[in-house]
Amino acid sequence: MDDKIILAHGNGGELMGNLISEIIVEILGKNTVQLDDSAVLGPVDGNLVFTTDTYTVTPVFFEGGNIGKLAVNGTVNDLSVMGAEPKFLSCGLVLEEGFEISSLKKILHSMKEAIDNAGVKIVTGDTKVVERGSADKIFINTSGIGIMRNYTFRKDIVAGDAVIVNGTIGDHGISIMAERNKLSFSGGLSSDSQPLNKMLQSIGIKYGDAVRFVRDATRGGVASVLNEVTGKEKFSIKLTEELLPVREEVKGVCEILGLDPLYAANEGKVVLIADPSRAEDIVNEMRRFKEGRDAVKIGEVDLEHPGRVYIETIIKGRRILPHLQEDQLPRIC
Amino acid sequence: MDDKIILAHGNGGELMGNLISEIIVEILGKNTVQLDDSAVLGPVDGNLVFTTDTYTVTPVFFEGGNIGKLAVNGTVNDLSVMGAEPKFLSCGLVLEEGFEISSLKKILHSMKEAIDNAGVKIVTGDTKVVERGSADKIFINTSGIGIMRNYTFRKDIVAGDAVIVNGTIGDHGISIMAERNKLSFSGGLSSDSQPLNKMLQSIGIKYGDAVRFVRDATRGGVASVLNEVTGKEKFSIKLTEELLPVREEVKGVCEILGLDPLYAANEGKVVLIADPSRAEDIVNEMRRFKEGRDAVKIGEVDLEHPGRVYIETIIKGRRILPHLQEDQLPRIC
Repeated sequence: MDDKIILAHGNGGELMGNLISEIIVEILGKNTVQLDDSAVLGPVDGNLVFTTDTYTVTPVFFEGGNIGKLAVNGTVNDLSVMGAEPKFLSCGLVLEEGFEISSLKKILHSMKEAIDNAGVKIVTGDTKVVERGSADKIFINTSGIGIMRNYTFRKDIVAGDAVIVNGTIGDHGISIMAERNKLSFSGGLSSDSQPLNKMLQSIGIKYGDAVRFVRDATRGGVASVLNEVTGKEKFSIKLTEELLPVREEVKGVCEILGLDPLYAANEGKVVLIADPSRAEDIVNEMRRFKEGRDAVKIGEVDLEHPGRVYIETIIKGRRILPHLQEDQLPRIC
Repeated sequence: MDDKIILAHGNGGELMGNLISEIIVEILGKNTVQLDDSAVLGPVDGNLVFTTDTYTVTPVFFEGGNIGKLAVNGTVNDLSVMGAEPKFLSCGLVLEEGFEISSLKKILHSMKEAIDNAGVKIVTGDTKVVERGSADKIFINTSGIGIMRNYTFRKDIVAGDAVIVNGTIGDHGISIMAERNKLSFSGGLSSDSQPLNKMLQSIGIKYGDAVRFVRDATRGGVASVLNEVTGKEKFSIKLTEELLPVREEVKGVCEILGLDPLYAANEGKVVLIADPSRAEDIVNEMRRFKEGRDAVKIGEVDLEHPGRVYIETIIKGRRILPHLQEDQLPRIC
């Protein structure tokens, strides 16, 4: 059998029907993915939360995962940082003519593993095929529905609040850049793609009242998320360089390629801002989960440089971390 | 100002923030599109319905609409044919570096017009930019959430049931093919992209008990939808050639290009199968709406050729309409 996607896989006819029923639905879960135009789900109890993300990462396969794992975990995390419990995902594929069906299967198996790991379901999908040169191998849109629980992660931020991350930063973006630049890997350089719903739910239930803000630090990295937070506010955010958890391998690649891990994408890390009196409890709660094993407080909210994010180093003193302007890492997710 | 999308529009930094807040959210509706990772919606009463579709149509602008109008109406219709009321849409954009921002604005304005027309909201979005040559101008994913009402459009189909369409067939697919082949247009050749939610809701409320099946006849056209219906069933579906509503202009292009309107995509047409005793009522109800002005019964369910769809012509006799094999129309939606 020819192991490539051809245009007829997207034409609404028999070959497309076979691709969907014998490969896509077969792998993602026969009992959950509905073949109809839409999936009819049960009633839900609580406020709905809705999100969407399209993944165009290149390369499609990388150390620590692939575009499929990324797509599932990314959407799970987008819902989780709102304080929602992720429930249902969709899977919209754009396939380039000539893409290997064996690679597609590998990606779908990763998606299945990721949904099982996060405890969510893919319930509906769509598949389009475009001519060679009109897309790059495979793009995946995962939209997601979650349900709000009894806590919220959005409250006013005030001076004194603690800024926490759940582990090392820049791992995903720097791993992808190392692959693209064909740098040889020492062990430990790998995408951090992981689902954060269980860790965040536990924090929400136990310390929800103390959490002011949570956001996954994807494109643009920790510095960009924090710049969005300070925006036009009267407070600033100070990071302490010595506290930033950055793997040695990541530092090494950053030096070679002239990149800054603070602006590099993460796919399993959140920035969490909290009442300082509960910061230690929250860090300890994160550390109970493998997804938060290296959690640490990295800075705090103050009034020193209104609207700005800055970093303080014992040796170098202060420097502002501006909004990202130039493109650092295209197609990182 | 440079009127093209550049890679930095997708990097998570300031330029991307401006594109989203000053163009995308500004046009789609400042009060509805939420800038956070996800949109928090209200509670809903009833069973959820969830769907996703990615649009890759080329050309992006065509007679009767553009990719944005198509994306909104397509997702509205996918929910509507399940018997659901469409409520919330997402908008996932993949933009090719170099795409004109003026074209993007035109597409977003069409999306806004389409959501207002259908009475739905776009509440969340995502924007990715890929390098020149890694996508073709713009792809749009619209996922959608609807709520089931008190009727269902899925019941057992039996011999004698009537097969109805809400108007002329093949308009979208044949219009796109005419544009691609630069055939000159006589008036009347135009995509049929339109939202069917209001017409189908009215039918559901008045005649829901009599409706066995509804599906929008998009990729693969009416023949492909009916082939999916007959599948491994014991019944067959007979279409009567003389009853098929096909515009003269569509027939003309089909003759020139060697296409069959029965396999051409529609973007505002459903195939509806119903209890024959209510078929006339349903056709008349469709005709009350501009979206169903040319509604007509085109065939019926029988037991003549189990599992097959066939067409009967007074002059030519019977012929089977097989499952679509060859690719007829790539990137038609």
